[in-house]
Amino acid sequence: MQDIEAVRAALRAQRIETPSWAYGNSGTRFKVFAQEGVPRDPYEKIADAARVHALTGVAPLVSLHIPWDRVDDYAHLAAHAHDHGVRIGAINANVFQDDAYRLGSVTNPDARVRRKAVHHLLACVDVLDATGSRDLKLWFADGTNYPGQGDIATRQAYLAEALAEVYARLSADQRILLEYKLFEPAFYMTDVPDWGTAYAHGLELGPRAVVCVDTGHHAPGTNIEFIVAFLLSRGRLGAFDFNSRFYADDDLMVGAADPFQLFRIMHEVVRGGGLDPAAGVNFMLDQCHNIEPKIPAQIRSVANVQEATAKALLVDAEELAAAQQAGDVLAANAVLMDAYATDVRPLLRELREEQGLAPDPVAAYHASGYAERIRAERVGGTQAGWGA
Amino acid sequence: MQDIEAVRAALRAQRIETPSWAYGNSGTRFKVFAQEGVPRDPYEKIADAARVHALTGVAPLVSLHIPWDRVDDYAHLAAHAHDHGVRIGAINANVFQDDAYRLGSVTNPDARVRRKAVHHLLACVDVLDATGSRDLKLWFADGTNYPGQGDIATRQAYLAEALAEVYARLSADQRILLEYKLFEPAFYMTDVPDWGTAYAHGLELGPRAVVCVDTGHHAPGTNIEFIVAFLLSRGRLGAFDFNSRFYADDDLMVGAADPFQLFRIMHEVVRGGGLDPAAGVNFMLDQCHNIEPKIPAQIRSVANVQEATAKALLVDAEELAAAQQAGDVLAANAVLMDAYATDVRPLLRELREEQGLAPDPVAAYHASGYAERIRAERVGGTQAGWGA
Amino acid sequence: MQDIEAVRAALRAQRIETPSWAYGNSGTRFKVFAQEGVPRDPYEKIADAARVHALTGVAPLVSLHIPWDRVDDYAHLAAHAHDHGVRIGAINANVFQDDAYRLGSVTNPDARVRRKAVHHLLACVDVLDATGSRDLKLWFADGTNYPGQGDIATRQAYLAEALAEVYARLSADQRILLEYKLFEPAFYMTDVPDWGTAYAHGLELGPRAVVCVDTGHHAPGTNIEFIVAFLLSRGRLGAFDFNSRFYADDDLMVGAADPFQLFRIMHEVVRGGGLDPAAGVNFMLDQCHNIEPKIPAQIRSVANVQEATAKALLVDAEELAAAQQAGDVLAANAVLMDAYATDVRPLLRELREEQGLAPDPVAAYHASGYAERIRAERVGGTQAGWGA
Amino acid sequence: MQDIEAVRAALRAQRIETPSWAYGNSGTRFKVFAQEGVPRDPYEKIADAARVHALTGVAPLVSLHIPWDRVDDYAHLAAHAHDHGVRIGAINANVFQDDAYRLGSVTNPDARVRRKAVHHLLACVDVLDATGSRDLKLWFADGTNYPGQGDIATRQAYLAEALAEVYARLSADQRILLEYKLFEPAFYMTDVPDWGTAYAHGLELGPRAVVCVDTGHHAPGTNIEFIVAFLLSRGRLGAFDFNSRFYADDDLMVGAADPFQLFRIMHEVVRGGGLDPAAGVNFMLDQCHNIEPKIPAQIRSVANVQEATAKALLVDAEELAAAQQAGDVLAANAVLMDAYATDVRPLLRELREEQGLAPDPVAAYHASGYAERIRAERVGGTQAGWGA
Repeated sequence: MQDIEAVRAALRAQRIETPSWAYGNSGTRFKVFAQEGVPRDPYEKIADAARVHALTGVAPLVSLHIPWDRVDDYAHLAAHAHDHGVRIGAINANVFQDDAYRLGSVTNPDARVRRKAVHHLLACVDVLDATGSRDLKLWFADGTNYPGQGDIATRQAYLAEALAEVYARLSADQRILLEYKLFEPAFYMTDVPDWGTAYAHGLELGPRAVVCVDTGHHAPGTNIEFIVAFLLSRGRLGAFDFNSRFYADDDLMVGAADPFQLFRIMHEVVRGGGLDPAAGVNFMLDQCHNIEPKIPAQIRSVANVQEATAKALLVDAEELAAAQQAGDVLAANAVLMDAYATDVRPLLRELREEQGLAPDPVAAYHASGYAERIRAERVGGTQAGWGA
Repeated sequence: MQDIEAVRAALRAQRIETPSWAYGNSGTRFKVFAQEGVPRDPYEKIADAARVHALTGVAPLVSLHIPWDRVDDYAHLAAHAHDHGVRIGAINANVFQDDAYRLGSVTNPDARVRRKAVHHLLACVDVLDATGSRDLKLWFADGTNYPGQGDIATRQAYLAEALAEVYARLSADQRILLEYKLFEPAFYMTDVPDWGTAYAHGLELGPRAVVCVDTGHHAPGTNIEFIVAFLLSRGRLGAFDFNSRFYADDDLMVGAADPFQLFRIMHEVVRGGGLDPAAGVNFMLDQCHNIEPKIPAQIRSVANVQEATAKALLVDAEELAAAQQAGDVLAANAVLMDAYATDVRPLLRELREEQGLAPDPVAAYHASGYAERIRAERVGGTQAGWGA
Repeated sequence: MQDIEAVRAALRAQRIETPSWAYGNSGTRFKVFAQEGVPRDPYEKIADAARVHALTGVAPLVSLHIPWDRVDDYAHLAAHAHDHGVRIGAINANVFQDDAYRLGSVTNPDARVRRKAVHHLLACVDVLDATGSRDLKLWFADGTNYPGQGDIATRQAYLAEALAEVYARLSADQRILLEYKLFEPAFYMTDVPDWGTAYAHGLELGPRAVVCVDTGHHAPGTNIEFIVAFLLSRGRLGAFDFNSRFYADDDLMVGAADPFQLFRIMHEVVRGGGLDPAAGVNFMLDQCHNIEPKIPAQIRSVANVQEATAKALLVDAEELAAAQQAGDVLAANAVLMDAYATDVRPLLRELREEQGLAPDPVAAYHASGYAERIRAERVGGTQAGWGA
Repeated sequence: MQDIEAVRAALRAQRIETPSWAYGNSGTRFKVFAQEGVPRDPYEKIADAARVHALTGVAPLVSLHIPWDRVDDYAHLAAHAHDHGVRIGAINANVFQDDAYRLGSVTNPDARVRRKAVHHLLACVDVLDATGSRDLKLWFADGTNYPGQGDIATRQAYLAEALAEVYARLSADQRILLEYKLFEPAFYMTDVPDWGTAYAHGLELGPRAVVCVDTGHHAPGTNIEFIVAFLLSRGRLGAFDFNSRFYADDDLMVGAADPFQLFRIMHEVVRGGGLDPAAGVNFMLDQCHNIEPKIPAQIRSVANVQEATAKALLVDAEELAAAQQAGDVLAANAVLMDAYATDVRPLLRELREEQGLAPDPVAAYHASGYAERIRAERVGGTQAGWGA
């Protein structure tokens, strides 16, 4: 039997980071459906993220994406966040939307393009310095579409060089979160396709180069919780990019496609001590709300992570270990499933009320008039979006 | 031993259709990399397609996409094509890029949107009438991203209604090519996800509602040539959308990812009589040249289809049937592999020279100065693209 | 708000069929781990199935597999079942374990083998007659391992011939359940690989040739509930073979790998009227308990189906339809997720107690001493198994 | 332009290892179809392997599987091999077919089972000593079927312990080849599921713990040649287990399912210097000939590897590098495809004739009367097989 007070304490202590780009427009290659009231600049994105935190109580951090969130004065932006009750989280370096990057950024065959890309990464470390952020998140769209187009080993060497230069630039309290992805936008070969590649580069770089697990970036059939457990055991699980997918990198709301998988992942996190802030795991969302309204979708996503976490915390660890040790397959499975079958929504409602929050944050959002206000106010200007 | 003259005759008679949109810009949700010299209107697209035909001798047809290729006078466009030595092929109805279609077109919960979509489909039949085209190609981006978002059965009923109305509008010599796709842009449920759904609706509609097999639209592990063989045996293989993929709907050049699969597909086409024009199979390309130049990529793709066809024609059908009948697994496989291992490039070069063409159409294109000319001439205006 | 009494009534009326082979030994190609107490003949298998029914109250039917369950007198076996409180359900025709079937059964290139296979299928209809069963379940291991090994279209013709002969032999109240499977044991091409093929053959045969959906027989990314909804809408969903899988046809306990998918499937069943006995949907389990004890695994599986059904019944259909019609993506999804998040175990415990059953059937099984008894009694003889 | 004499020299120097178990019976969980003339002991398996070498000239090594190939005197077996013109290659430790291993071998929750497994691994090192083999190949069937069944991190720790003990036992010229596999026979979690896990354990063990890439052990969409290139660049590509697959671990003849992939893999091998014996890459086959005769299937497989190697050697490395460096996507792809399109069978026939071999080794096998002889001689006794 789990100690319910410990469960509650762990849930109170949980921190989830929302991404600035989730508040802007996004879409597929076929169409971006613009929504009313979408932010027009990083300040408005942070305001929306702050609203999500105000309603959920567990989302006090906002990831930025540079240059999407480029401002003249990052300290000012950080102060703005602080005024809204949130903080700047990970800085995402975007090296995939300049025309120069058609054939890659840090792995481009052209040395000048590689240089340009590294300069941008270094500039992002400046943003870390200015905002007090800990994490530089590196995801590379780099790869090739056709066999023969690029030389895999040469590109790996370029990648290692670029990472080394950036790693050397970090302060002692800063980290690289190296993200991997199976495919897209490159279709034949991706330069960091899997956790093994990210982990191997991290080992070669040093202890502050850790892995970011995006839950949508795996081949079908991959056991993600295995990866989580392994990385945690080696001290290399730096962060999650939470979202969900049915097929490819769908970037749907976390927990929407396979809530049981999310629970299994959180079970390994709990099991491996990953909820302890000392473990250094950053629980981030990375989602695209192509057709649904963005703020309530973020709220729902935060709640989905909370529910999975609550269920994971409710797993009776002793009983589980005993059944595992006894080789009782069905009993061990049943211990896990019992926690999963539990309806934790009442528990989460209670915790919210304890903190003075509305028990149902989505309903509270709809009642708040915020959506109507931003639709009315945010007219004119250029809406934020993936391409903005 | 195959009759080599029959092989040559079949290769001379082959017709491949290229898509107008392959000459425009395309990309992923992350970035569209614009290229110089890209067409700015349907007339320039047709000029590029005509150039592909002039160099290959087997690509005299061009598919249009409406409204991407909307013009005031389609008869004029058809005459323009004729003047360039090509003809208008299939008309693709685009019902996915209007803001109204966020939750679907013909399966939208809102009756007005469904009406609007059907009106567009009917308008596309007008284009068939005006251009003398035979085929209306219907691909629906319709589907849902989240469980519960839409009712599957209701949406199927809407789909059937829309198809019936369009089918009733066709002339006796016009056809619907109904295309299926596993996923994207819808991520949870697609309204026509597989060949079974397209075939079932076709049966309910009538004999002129046939299936279009896009080679990139299947789940991993799907045996596409089985589908081809089955549809051919039932007289329901209407067309191919050729392209290739490693992971999802990558829309790479046909034959680039799995040339052996393309050969196996063409083997079933040959085996089932699908090369005979009476079979009514339209061999179309449907590709996106995101990072490579478009015209030579189309030329290469046409050549790839020719090579696969040549190898399929070289399969010794009698020897194969004998080994199959004898249950000699290795011998039967070897008959197929012998044809596949054959280098058919010399044969295709000969056939081109017989027709007064250059033996290497890509080299001929580069030598022709066409690329330089369009880069110089096509300045200003708006480049064509997926969103144009 | 769903009518809770209607929910309870539907749950009381539900009938699940367990397979005789699940009580015998099974394994992978690497190893079959034998378990103590496993049945040695069909009579003992039925006794075990009856035990599952006695404890769950909803599993009064047992599928047989012929020749695994061959007996001299099927009427006697049916009477034995009746004496144990259960009935014979679907008859599964096994045409894959005779040496003659190395290259296929009904699609074998050798006419004598095809004949032999059809004779076995017809003999299975005799078993239907003798046992009073309604359903002949046909799954064919037929296919090829290598391209070229067999001719796809010829094999389809052989398949159609065999099915027609068997269909003609059926009584008016008997049905063919035609099962499809993506791959395994054939690795290159399977003769009935997908629902489209099974459905197409069913249409050509007649109304009593319906489709059996094995939840483990699909390519990655396939939306199974779509197939369920479609087949139900056309009156062609004959049965489920329930099990679960992470990767391939793992045949794990239903609901063990993706309980949310099972819920979505049951939601479509409820939505499409499939729980109504008049719909003719046979809810069967088809599982292999390679490492876990078989009887409690069956009990757990039955409970998993019940839980998914209960959640599906709790979906607020009106609220869902309203949100769908309004195009409110998040609200519609939330209606579904609310039902899924509900802990239905208390409801099912209540229903069991109402029927005089123990609330926890697995615990009741362990307390009953049955496992110890069969371990003691079933010594000597040959254990039942996939190869037995 | 590649130096054709260098190509010929490289092909002459190539060495491929065939597996003893490929000469025995194998099958799927559904059925093992026994074949006539199959070996009844390791001596007969080696005789068959020697026959493959005699006909191909490039297969002088035979892998053993212990205990399938257990003999009293391994030195005697090695001498037998020598007398037949071949040598013992890798020793495969089989820790998955004892009843004790139902829940794992080196990761079993029961310490006694773990001990037993490690003892077997150590005993296999004794076989290396006795036979003079260099490579101990470790593939673990270990894993779990159900979430909760085992603790991932604990099992990783057990795995590390076992590997460390075995590594410590190796002589300075012996290696561990650690093989990974996505799934099967474990369905939920496999203890060494991917190259990242194998590589990570190898790094922790030492330089002589290298990775074995089985080409059938990956998730759909995995770019295997990327893994090959990466491991080669780090000196950790120890071996291949060649075979091919359409869906899962089908263990078909290498090159049968995707010959272009095999070519791409060999291209990375050539590019990374992996053909040089100093690189230490062991090119092994690992296949199951379930329905086709075994010896000619091995011959065909050897030839398929040779053809892919020949094509990879024909890639114009300079031209390729130039096109890659120039960012010419189509030209770079064309260089690769030109080599792939080349018919290398004449070259291989020439090389065989130079060595005094028949140009077509399969035909030579059929003409030799060997098949008839073993069918006649190998009557009685127990046929070798996966379970033997």
